Amino acid sequence: MHTLDLNKVKISVVGMGYVGLPLAVAFGQKYKTVGFDINKKRIELLQNKIDHTNETSAKDLTKAKFLEYSSNPKSIEDSNVYIVTVPTPIDDLNVPDLNSIKEASKLISSVLKKDDLVIYESTVYPGLTEEICIPILEESNLILNKDFLCGYSPERINPGDQHHRLTNIVKVVSGSNAEALNIVDQLYSSIIDAGTYRAQTIKVAEAAKVIENTQRDLNIALVNELSIIFNKLDIDTSAVLDAASTKWNFNRYNPGLVGGHCIGVDPYYLTFKSKQLGYLPKIILSGRKVNNEMPAYICSKLIESMKRRKIRLKKSKVLILGFTFKENCPDIRNTKVIDLFLELKKHALNPDIFDPFVNSLEAKKNYGVKMLKTVQTNQYDAVILAVPHKEFIDKGLQYIKSLCSKESLFFDIKGAFSQEESQFRL
Amino acid sequence: MHTLDLNKVKISVVGMGYVGLPLAVAFGQKYKTVGFDINKKRIELLQNKIDHTNETSAKDLTKAKFLEYSSNPKSIEDSNVYIVTVPTPIDDLNVPDLNSIKEASKLISSVLKKDDLVIYESTVYPGLTEEICIPILEESNLILNKDFLCGYSPERINPGDQHHRLTNIVKVVSGSNAEALNIVDQLYSSIIDAGTYRAQTIKVAEAAKVIENTQRDLNIALVNELSIIFNKLDIDTSAVLDAASTKWNFNRYNPGLVGGHCIGVDPYYLTFKSKQLGYLPKIILSGRKVNNEMPAYICSKLIESMKRRKIRLKKSKVLILGFTFKENCPDIRNTKVIDLFLELKKHALNPDIFDPFVNSLEAKKNYGVKMLKTVQTNQYDAVILAVPHKEFIDKGLQYIKSLCSKESLFFDIKGAFSQEESQFRL
Repeated sequence: MHTLDLNKVKISVVGMGYVGLPLAVAFGQKYKTVGFDINKKRIELLQNKIDHTNETSAKDLTKAKFLEYSSNPKSIEDSNVYIVTVPTPIDDLNVPDLNSIKEASKLISSVLKKDDLVIYESTVYPGLTEEICIPILEESNLILNKDFLCGYSPERINPGDQHHRLTNIVKVVSGSNAEALNIVDQLYSSIIDAGTYRAQTIKVAEAAKVIENTQRDLNIALVNELSIIFNKLDIDTSAVLDAASTKWNFNRYNPGLVGGHCIGVDPYYLTFKSKQLGYLPKIILSGRKVNNEMPAYICSKLIESMKRRKIRLKKSKVLILGFTFKENCPDIRNTKVIDLFLELKKHALNPDIFDPFVNSLEAKKNYGVKMLKTVQTNQYDAVILAVPHKEFIDKGLQYIKSLCSKESLFFDIKGAFSQEESQFRL
Repeated sequence: MHTLDLNKVKISVVGMGYVGLPLAVAFGQKYKTVGFDINKKRIELLQNKIDHTNETSAKDLTKAKFLEYSSNPKSIEDSNVYIVTVPTPIDDLNVPDLNSIKEASKLISSVLKKDDLVIYESTVYPGLTEEICIPILEESNLILNKDFLCGYSPERINPGDQHHRLTNIVKVVSGSNAEALNIVDQLYSSIIDAGTYRAQTIKVAEAAKVIENTQRDLNIALVNELSIIFNKLDIDTSAVLDAASTKWNFNRYNPGLVGGHCIGVDPYYLTFKSKQLGYLPKIILSGRKVNNEMPAYICSKLIESMKRRKIRLKKSKVLILGFTFKENCPDIRNTKVIDLFLELKKHALNPDIFDPFVNSLEAKKNYGVKMLKTVQTNQYDAVILAVPHKEFIDKGLQYIKSLCSKESLFFDIKGAFSQEESQFRL
């Protein structure tokens, strides 16, 4: 019935964030593509070839010669392929917040035409596309697999990672029927050098995505738990991981704060669905709990060390270096450094935060924190290197030392420097 | 002070099990070696070149031309290197059972001489060698690092694995001081083709070993939990794992029963020590709990399916294929198939067990179960392939089918056959 004539494809990518933009850029080198976002400011910047996420360069944006940006719903009306790349966050109670994906589906539903194809890339729980999104699309009075087709192809963007890029990562594809699968596969195969993997069903593809980050989250939680145990045993976690990593089937994960838009969020999509079905996940949630408690743990270790050095907490000054959820990336969504900051404040400490990657206004708006513009030297009783941006590392240990007062503590959370240089690392 | 003259080395390996024998065989090709075990039967068989663990062949045993076996403590008196490879199991309350390692240490203590070296390979919690074993060795009135040296080099034997053998797996080595480390390293380097890894301290080496299996246990627990969720979602776990495995940083683990002498045991050593230090591990124990509950889960799924097919439970006959803790290996220590068997009995079912790998007497003695000698055909209302020995797989699906009555169920726990062939798999 349906065959995709690649010459007649017109794609709309809905959501121009970390996921949507690189995808639009890839498609926009071959096909007529609209990069749509409701954020007018973002669209304006992109029109001026500025991508504040740093995921694409001005050169990349220039290469995408068939790509246009718009925040006007009219602009997507004449597309025949719609790809949804909006965020799927969680709310304050760790429950999936489906507003954006529902709104995107409504928008597409309002312009959906016969023979169109709608593909979701947002991370969801297994079943969500068919249970939530397709009914919204069918509000157009078009019927799935008769009038239009649907696909799911989970995004695997790794923000800040220069090696694993959209086109060199295998892309999982799935479809609402065999035809849909073929078309989705054909479409992605035309831009993904690493090739595609055809999942059995949409639900399988949804599940595959959500378990990738669930596994990562849990394994980081495990090494975080190990680091708590090893701290009590007075052994260095990295030294143990180095030794264990010499076994062929040991997989190296490093302890640290787990924030961001994926690893700390996706597991809750799966646990939400699982609870709905009557099974309370034990392991996944225990991992989430341990990871969420790490900021408080680090704070407790700092206070312990300060007391040991007889530093008076109330008069002390603490500097947190790094605020983003991950090194070398400006993304502050769901950063756990804010939890560390708040924990320190709760204990009457006076933390400052410095992160040259971060837009101060954004940090103020989202978290109510004021970021330092510059850091004064010889001032801090404790420096916590929370996010080891390359910029900090390149300046070397002298830089950290220059910020410290005489009896200062250095907490090298992620072990960016060697073991003997800091008083604590996970 | 100490240097090891490899020409004058005489090694005693204490404990001729899955770990000790391959080690003694490797050393016995180069050095005078005594393979010691308190089990006289085992020694007799080894003297006749029979290794019932199948880890070594008669040819291997013949190659070890400097190796002698003995259960007489006199035989180890004139050694200068002692290597402890005894089991470190847990008791019924999941608490470390240190009897064997203490007895082995006492034995060595009774023959210890100046300049001797004692190396432990048994899996322990971090600190155990120094807190428990060395004090026993010092009951000889010899003093560590003055009169004798100590090392820890964790075993990484993978029973039944023909690819990862003693000599091609990197060996972690550690010592009670720099000299000890050098000597231990020199000794193992002379037999391990894959080389050694020098850990900072004995405690680091102990920790490295115990986290390897802890990570594996937890990751299997995660896929077991996922399989429970996916079963409710009516999606096949393997299909999801296949798709997720196409991501560069996803690590494939398969769901299943976790038994045996290592993966299901080692985590308890770590959690024991952790609790002693005041930290109750959340993640590691939640993983253990889920894995321990899998036999009951499988039983509940079987009963559900039988009821759906209107098979009367009390009159039904259920066959369990496989009893060992792992495929292609005769080891029944800590097998979880017994839990499945008992669970079925608890629900008034009548399970039979067939496993051509297993010594019936041993099974009877250790678990009080009678194993089938042969299996009758056309008889069973349900067949559970619990352990996919190559022998079962090679006979093919016709074999399984031949055992079944008309309306029979086939539970392919580990997914040895393709998805559509069975009514259930994890």
